[in-house]
Amino acid sequence: MTQARRHHDPEVKAFASDNYAGVHPEILEALALANGGHQIAYGDDVYTEALQEVFHRHFGPAAEVWPVFNGTGANVVGLRAMTSPWEAVVCAESAHINTDEGGAPEQSAGLKLMSVPTPDGKLTPELIDRQAWGFGDEHRAQPRVVSISQSTELGTLYTPAEITAVAAHCHELGMLLHLDGSRLINAAAALDVPLRALTTDAGVDVLSFGGTKSGLMFGEAIVVLEPSAVRGLIYLRKSSMQLASKMRFVSVQFEALLAGDLWLRNARNGNAMAARLAAAVRDVPGVTVTRAVEANAVFAVLPPEVAERLRKRFRFYTWNEATGEVRWMTAFDTSEADVDAFAAAIAEEMAGR
Amino acid sequence: MTQARRHHDPEVKAFASDNYAGVHPEILEALALANGGHQIAYGDDVYTEALQEVFHRHFGPAAEVWPVFNGTGANVVGLRAMTSPWEAVVCAESAHINTDEGGAPEQSAGLKLMSVPTPDGKLTPELIDRQAWGFGDEHRAQPRVVSISQSTELGTLYTPAEITAVAAHCHELGMLLHLDGSRLINAAAALDVPLRALTTDAGVDVLSFGGTKSGLMFGEAIVVLEPSAVRGLIYLRKSSMQLASKMRFVSVQFEALLAGDLWLRNARNGNAMAARLAAAVRDVPGVTVTRAVEANAVFAVLPPEVAERLRKRFRFYTWNEATGEVRWMTAFDTSEADVDAFAAAIAEEMAGR
Amino acid sequence: MTQARRHHDPEVKAFASDNYAGVHPEILEALALANGGHQIAYGDDVYTEALQEVFHRHFGPAAEVWPVFNGTGANVVGLRAMTSPWEAVVCAESAHINTDEGGAPEQSAGLKLMSVPTPDGKLTPELIDRQAWGFGDEHRAQPRVVSISQSTELGTLYTPAEITAVAAHCHELGMLLHLDGSRLINAAAALDVPLRALTTDAGVDVLSFGGTKSGLMFGEAIVVLEPSAVRGLIYLRKSSMQLASKMRFVSVQFEALLAGDLWLRNARNGNAMAARLAAAVRDVPGVTVTRAVEANAVFAVLPPEVAERLRKRFRFYTWNEATGEVRWMTAFDTSEADVDAFAAAIAEEMAGR
Amino acid sequence: MTQARRHHDPEVKAFASDNYAGVHPEILEALALANGGHQIAYGDDVYTEALQEVFHRHFGPAAEVWPVFNGTGANVVGLRAMTSPWEAVVCAESAHINTDEGGAPEQSAGLKLMSVPTPDGKLTPELIDRQAWGFGDEHRAQPRVVSISQSTELGTLYTPAEITAVAAHCHELGMLLHLDGSRLINAAAALDVPLRALTTDAGVDVLSFGGTKSGLMFGEAIVVLEPSAVRGLIYLRKSSMQLASKMRFVSVQFEALLAGDLWLRNARNGNAMAARLAAAVRDVPGVTVTRAVEANAVFAVLPPEVAERLRKRFRFYTWNEATGEVRWMTAFDTSEADVDAFAAAIAEEMAGR
Repeated sequence: MTQARRHHDPEVKAFASDNYAGVHPEILEALALANGGHQIAYGDDVYTEALQEVFHRHFGPAAEVWPVFNGTGANVVGLRAMTSPWEAVVCAESAHINTDEGGAPEQSAGLKLMSVPTPDGKLTPELIDRQAWGFGDEHRAQPRVVSISQSTELGTLYTPAEITAVAAHCHELGMLLHLDGSRLINAAAALDVPLRALTTDAGVDVLSFGGTKSGLMFGEAIVVLEPSAVRGLIYLRKSSMQLASKMRFVSVQFEALLAGDLWLRNARNGNAMAARLAAAVRDVPGVTVTRAVEANAVFAVLPPEVAERLRKRFRFYTWNEATGEVRWMTAFDTSEADVDAFAAAIAEEMAGR
Repeated sequence: MTQARRHHDPEVKAFASDNYAGVHPEILEALALANGGHQIAYGDDVYTEALQEVFHRHFGPAAEVWPVFNGTGANVVGLRAMTSPWEAVVCAESAHINTDEGGAPEQSAGLKLMSVPTPDGKLTPELIDRQAWGFGDEHRAQPRVVSISQSTELGTLYTPAEITAVAAHCHELGMLLHLDGSRLINAAAALDVPLRALTTDAGVDVLSFGGTKSGLMFGEAIVVLEPSAVRGLIYLRKSSMQLASKMRFVSVQFEALLAGDLWLRNARNGNAMAARLAAAVRDVPGVTVTRAVEANAVFAVLPPEVAERLRKRFRFYTWNEATGEVRWMTAFDTSEADVDAFAAAIAEEMAGR
Repeated sequence: MTQARRHHDPEVKAFASDNYAGVHPEILEALALANGGHQIAYGDDVYTEALQEVFHRHFGPAAEVWPVFNGTGANVVGLRAMTSPWEAVVCAESAHINTDEGGAPEQSAGLKLMSVPTPDGKLTPELIDRQAWGFGDEHRAQPRVVSISQSTELGTLYTPAEITAVAAHCHELGMLLHLDGSRLINAAAALDVPLRALTTDAGVDVLSFGGTKSGLMFGEAIVVLEPSAVRGLIYLRKSSMQLASKMRFVSVQFEALLAGDLWLRNARNGNAMAARLAAAVRDVPGVTVTRAVEANAVFAVLPPEVAERLRKRFRFYTWNEATGEVRWMTAFDTSEADVDAFAAAIAEEMAGR
Repeated sequence: MTQARRHHDPEVKAFASDNYAGVHPEILEALALANGGHQIAYGDDVYTEALQEVFHRHFGPAAEVWPVFNGTGANVVGLRAMTSPWEAVVCAESAHINTDEGGAPEQSAGLKLMSVPTPDGKLTPELIDRQAWGFGDEHRAQPRVVSISQSTELGTLYTPAEITAVAAHCHELGMLLHLDGSRLINAAAALDVPLRALTTDAGVDVLSFGGTKSGLMFGEAIVVLEPSAVRGLIYLRKSSMQLASKMRFVSVQFEALLAGDLWLRNARNGNAMAARLAAAVRDVPGVTVTRAVEANAVFAVLPPEVAERLRKRFRFYTWNEATGEVRWMTAFDTSEADVDAFAAAIAEEMAGR
């Protein structure tokens, strides 16, 4: 019997981030399944081999899947494999790679990011053109990749047509399209389209496919949709510290997520709970939902002192100190009861202000 | 029920590497224990908090533990936190950081390694002096850290006195001592000393404490024994792509390993199985054990064509193409039956050559 | 007699950049003076030693001068010495380090730049605050330095009071102030203040002092005004490929520039010629001077086809393809006759459109 | 008249390094020739254009010349253009890039160096094979370039046949050959062969051609002999801070050096003076010349206290603290009188020990 102890109350939920959640029970079950005996380390195991076929079903037969540890790793390794050292990445100013990865792209990979302010976290051909110029000019880091997020950091979604237009624009410019899909499943579920409609079919070249926020214990996947878009990925994964030795345990989690419909169930739950929350607070006087609720995030403004009191009962983050805007995230394991309790707490704290 | 399938035969073992093994059942149990409910992401969870005390028991009250994903990550982040960008790391030519991390220290962190050939993988004050010079000379990357491995890549061990002498020498030179302890548990078990005798008490400043090879699913720990030896570790862990969002699942594994005696049981088993194997093959004509068997590795020379045939039955690696030397590693889950079957196979293949 | 040949017509001038100019004759004379015999390489020569005192006269007794090769080098080495690898630099979106150094800060030094759009190339405390936040948050590269340019890339100037306010704001935030002074002499001459009024006295910590655009053959100087603001500069200059072996020839040029009033004569000429040009074209119908002419740059809009024809007679750059805005720079060697000829050409081409 | 002053005695010479020397008068003359008027910055000037043809005469019609500031820059930019971020460079342990560039290759370019001990500073196919292995193994930085020095840091020379053999071996392995030729002119002069015999004709892919040690004020040249061996050089030169704005002044110096026979005169003088010095001290009792004197360096052992006294009269460096070996370098401007005075001083100090 393990000598570790349980230190937490598994009944307590938060609305802070989908990575506050634990592991979906089916994923945990899969981990046990893959245990026992010896498997070749560093990805030559049968689980990683089997995973290729699972991804082919979702992303087409040309897709190559490269499991890594986390989202920052997936983004940095993917982008590094798409660029030469003198090339740059165009992204939204609000992109996770620009704001929330501690400078990893620049500090660990020497990647210059060229960011563009956006109204809603989404790039368009016009916005891309604000940075995608100066080709051939040695004084300018050479724009090579556009990186978009789906769903975005602001909880908004690109339609398949919008991604297709962005991809076409990139390719016309001789550039490549990268998609940070740490919450891709939420986008596909919300739009009711298969994963490939937002990626392979839309012209995305390389994808960071999110596992951790989708219900895994750990693990993300770099999915190469256009093999000619990358160079040296196998080496860069290792030298970027993203090569898991016991990789079977990353791969089997993705199999559990994607072999059947677990991804869709998880995503739909998160999305539905966000919608339920938004609906529940819309009528609370003094609370304003500030952005379209398209996936599993609700952005709202409420009085800071109310937010402060509320936070003692349910954790969540302030998104913008200046405006008092907060972000409420739901996850695969958020229940209706969780949402209702949280909505009730919001109403109570607002009433008592 | 999970939609993943079992793809492998859990009865099959190898002698290739301790990271071919899976997860110790007590670790798996601990992972389930930590599941459920929400926990603050990125290390502010109660499991990571509790882990500090567990490490204090082994490494003293000043120790700080920083969970990361893998060994390359632990080494690179630890070394980067110990150095400024103009400083260098002295290590054995055979050190894992020099030979087996795909150039990660140089390529992802800009670290210059100054390597020294050694007879047995071990550095001494005299060997360190071959590179530890030129202080204050701007034309020379400034030697700042010595990094040693325990057990070494060649399966050899430093005694506590040897580490103490190396540490004292480093400190006299104004340098710091880093220990790559991906197999530290095997060393402590073999020498029958507590973990701190090889680290804190010997003067080591920063330790990479190995989890994966000790029976975890994934996870290593940077253990800072001398807090003044590091700067910016919290930021470097993030920007080096080594910050796990659901960190509770790394931490609880280490708790399971170190709260009781699991680490010692696992290490003793690996060591005993290596000794058993060495004993079993020593009398096989044509097989020569080439190095002292001090931990869980056996190095041997046997005819290449025999090695080739044998490898079809049990996987293992050739260590040195030129000499035909092979490496046989045992793990926490290697059984007496596994060893006996392998030894029998060796004898058979040798007989049939 | 040299076996090189003269390949150009020394009478031809342009309005493209102050680095199209050659070397001021007094600088060339100084280079000859420093020649002959042997001097210790890499900066231990008597010219570099003597230069310290020359800079003390302009920047105060605490100033330390570190000659380097070029402006990119001065900026990157200076900024790198002011930061740890997890720290970032806040700058104007139009800053030279952000737009015109080929990604050198990111690619060669791993520096993250956090840029802010500005109306006129100038940062203010309010604009700085748009990026200077998140201190202590491991997910955010840590803002450590603000870098401003004087004169700016848009030809505008900070007053001493404005720089003082920016510096005070930086220091309140625990940040440092870097000044890219590739055209600092033009700013000081235009504002009719000593160099120290814009740097030492205003609270600047580290300065890139421009030599090449001031009339040198090559060479810039990192001037450390606050010694506690930098670490490892001597090593970083070498490892950033900015350590000149025959450094006496960089140092003596700066002595020639700064020991007397050559810097002021050069700067005043550039500024006066820009003013003369602006005055001359202001009345040309169809030409609009678009920005305040405060130093040695004139920005203007004129019909693209006119610009195209004009460019065949005098080289200059288009600043903004979208608006047709062009930039005309004057230099230490631009003469009244040059300006008058250029202004006449502008008028002619406009008339003939 | 310049306001700089002469601070040194142009009669004093040293035997410390060829970069203690100043500028050859013909080079200085060339600099004046290129002055005056405006030229396009950053290498689009007529001097840099004309230089291509000058290099073609020496290195063949496919050669491309890229002027840079210094030797570290030439080496790092050249090597970076020859490699992808996951690739490594094999070099002699004593190579300048490994020992004397402050870690620039690793720290500024992320390049892993794989060094090999050599008896005489020279690599051979056999020595290269000690590091050139592991192709396709993601755990090993991928050996891509071999870098050799001619003349070597130990004053030894490769014959054309030796370089040819090394190049052939590299190419068979799918690797490239880089030559650090900071003293290539001394090698060619000593071997009495044209420059191309040691480079283009021998199979070298990329060359760092030394200017500063050959009598220039500053400036080196990356010479691409095999265009397919490099990628992105134009961008890497900029982002590595090696792009001179007033490049005409680098280029015209190389024209002065190479358009006629100045390079040969300079090299022959240095070599002859080294030979003269070696001959003069060979009979001094207690002084042992330790290495073959093949170019412009003399290595010798003499009693440390004598070296100490001697150094007060003529500067030179100790090469090896442990053995007391010193290095005496001659330069283009070392005269017979200088050598005779130095040799007499050696004899005097030895006699007086």
